[in-house]
Amino acid sequence: MLSYDEYLKMVEEHLTDTLKSLGFIPQRILDPMCYSLSAGGKRVRPVMLLAACDMGGGKTERALPFACALEMIHTYSLIHDDLPAMDNDDERRGKPSCHVAFGEDLAILAGDGLLSAASEIMLREAVLHPDGRAAAAALCVMRRAGVTGMVGGQTVDVTMENKPVTEETVRYIHLHKTADLLTAPMEAGLILAGAARDQIEAGIQFGQKLGLAFQMMDDLLDVEGDAAVLGKRTGLDDQAGKQTWIALRGVNGTKADLERTTDEAISALHIFGTSGNFFKDLALKMLHRVQ
Amino acid sequence: MLSYDEYLKMVEEHLTDTLKSLGFIPQRILDPMCYSLSAGGKRVRPVMLLAACDMGGGKTERALPFACALEMIHTYSLIHDDLPAMDNDDERRGKPSCHVAFGEDLAILAGDGLLSAASEIMLREAVLHPDGRAAAAALCVMRRAGVTGMVGGQTVDVTMENKPVTEETVRYIHLHKTADLLTAPMEAGLILAGAARDQIEAGIQFGQKLGLAFQMMDDLLDVEGDAAVLGKRTGLDDQAGKQTWIALRGVNGTKADLERTTDEAISALHIFGTSGNFFKDLALKMLHRVQ
Repeated sequence: MLSYDEYLKMVEEHLTDTLKSLGFIPQRILDPMCYSLSAGGKRVRPVMLLAACDMGGGKTERALPFACALEMIHTYSLIHDDLPAMDNDDERRGKPSCHVAFGEDLAILAGDGLLSAASEIMLREAVLHPDGRAAAAALCVMRRAGVTGMVGGQTVDVTMENKPVTEETVRYIHLHKTADLLTAPMEAGLILAGAARDQIEAGIQFGQKLGLAFQMMDDLLDVEGDAAVLGKRTGLDDQAGKQTWIALRGVNGTKADLERTTDEAISALHIFGTSGNFFKDLALKMLHRVQ
Repeated sequence: MLSYDEYLKMVEEHLTDTLKSLGFIPQRILDPMCYSLSAGGKRVRPVMLLAACDMGGGKTERALPFACALEMIHTYSLIHDDLPAMDNDDERRGKPSCHVAFGEDLAILAGDGLLSAASEIMLREAVLHPDGRAAAAALCVMRRAGVTGMVGGQTVDVTMENKPVTEETVRYIHLHKTADLLTAPMEAGLILAGAARDQIEAGIQFGQKLGLAFQMMDDLLDVEGDAAVLGKRTGLDDQAGKQTWIALRGVNGTKADLERTTDEAISALHIFGTSGNFFKDLALKMLHRVQ
């Protein structure tokens, strides 16, 4: 297993090249796609995918195109989420949002382009490696990104603003809007490694708990975080009448749930022995993150 | 080989069920997706995919999920294309556009959802049928739908409005914005059938010529068509300063090119013998369409 920064370096080195490897892409769509792809961020999803594949005894080279595809899916969701008709955020990671920098039309197309590219990159792997693993990993990524996953969660998030907050709704939103895209790298990475079914199930369990914890922390940072450190405005959830964990449990209740959920995530790693330490550290780091 | 209406019936019967087969989809996203999917249209792309598979000696049951996926991709592109930041069309096939009926946020998400669903449906086939054909067919559909295909064409269409009209630009837009999604069904259908390489190449050739002819006719209808029959306003291209075949060649030049291109499409079918008659009829029908 490598360190977070070593996996991160692999992702950074291959992200835009993997996109460009698809063939001739008009500059006017390549620019906004690369602008948002290069805006940085922690690359937590692709790093997790590489590490999960490593943890399962697989080759990271085979996981790399999937890691890049997953980051493209995450990036498309941020571009569309920031649009005026959605969350209307004009800043992302301290820089103008894609639609502010390139216009709404190109931001919509750049999002569509990144989602298409992600699917294409994974399908290319399925054609190159007909052993079934690539197709299965691609299917799990697209399932968790799609209408029964992230897009479903986004929809409930958007349409349940200013409605009575219920645990069922908050949980659905957190699980699908956020946790699905943190579960996909565990599932896909372990599938690519050819891991056993119970290991894949444990990975899914970890991803879901980590995802819930991640969103609880996000909700907390929106209340207690530092806008300058976060690179985005705070207090937006309450303003928009969002269904958050805070609205359900309050700040202290959320903090308690966050600790418990982090413990549950770490417990799920038991099956991996010391190979699970990478993800244990990741879960603990998430508990103390400030951005 | 069946008739157009028989293939059409197969598509109509399976389209929404195929979408719903993905699992639990929140009603708030299912509604706008089904609204736009059910808005009718000629279903020319999925019908072509079924017929191409049949022409190549394949089983239409294996082609059906791909036909549905392709119609979902076409529908997502229409939903996003109609958005205020894009072509700003408030009507589609005589009904309110998706964003008029459901709001911009849900229209963006419904488009994202349909594209994701299409990819997921094709990947599910690739996992179910690990013979390589499904993965290859899915890759060709996503490639023609993505940044080197339709999304690329859309981008050039949007960004070259009110710029000097050149043949290179018009041809790029027509080939990618329109022809790629009419070429994909030929290529994917024949791949699924296990057709020989020269047959697949002939199918691609036919699809590209048909696509160019289709867009020439579209440009002509925008000038000479009947808005009531078309179910959309006319004269929009000139108003928006679009790069059209009309702007390049004039009405009479476009009509001559349309006849020539239709002839070229039909010539490409030679390799299929009498099995090619379905597509010959389709090309001739397109030459005389009024909507």
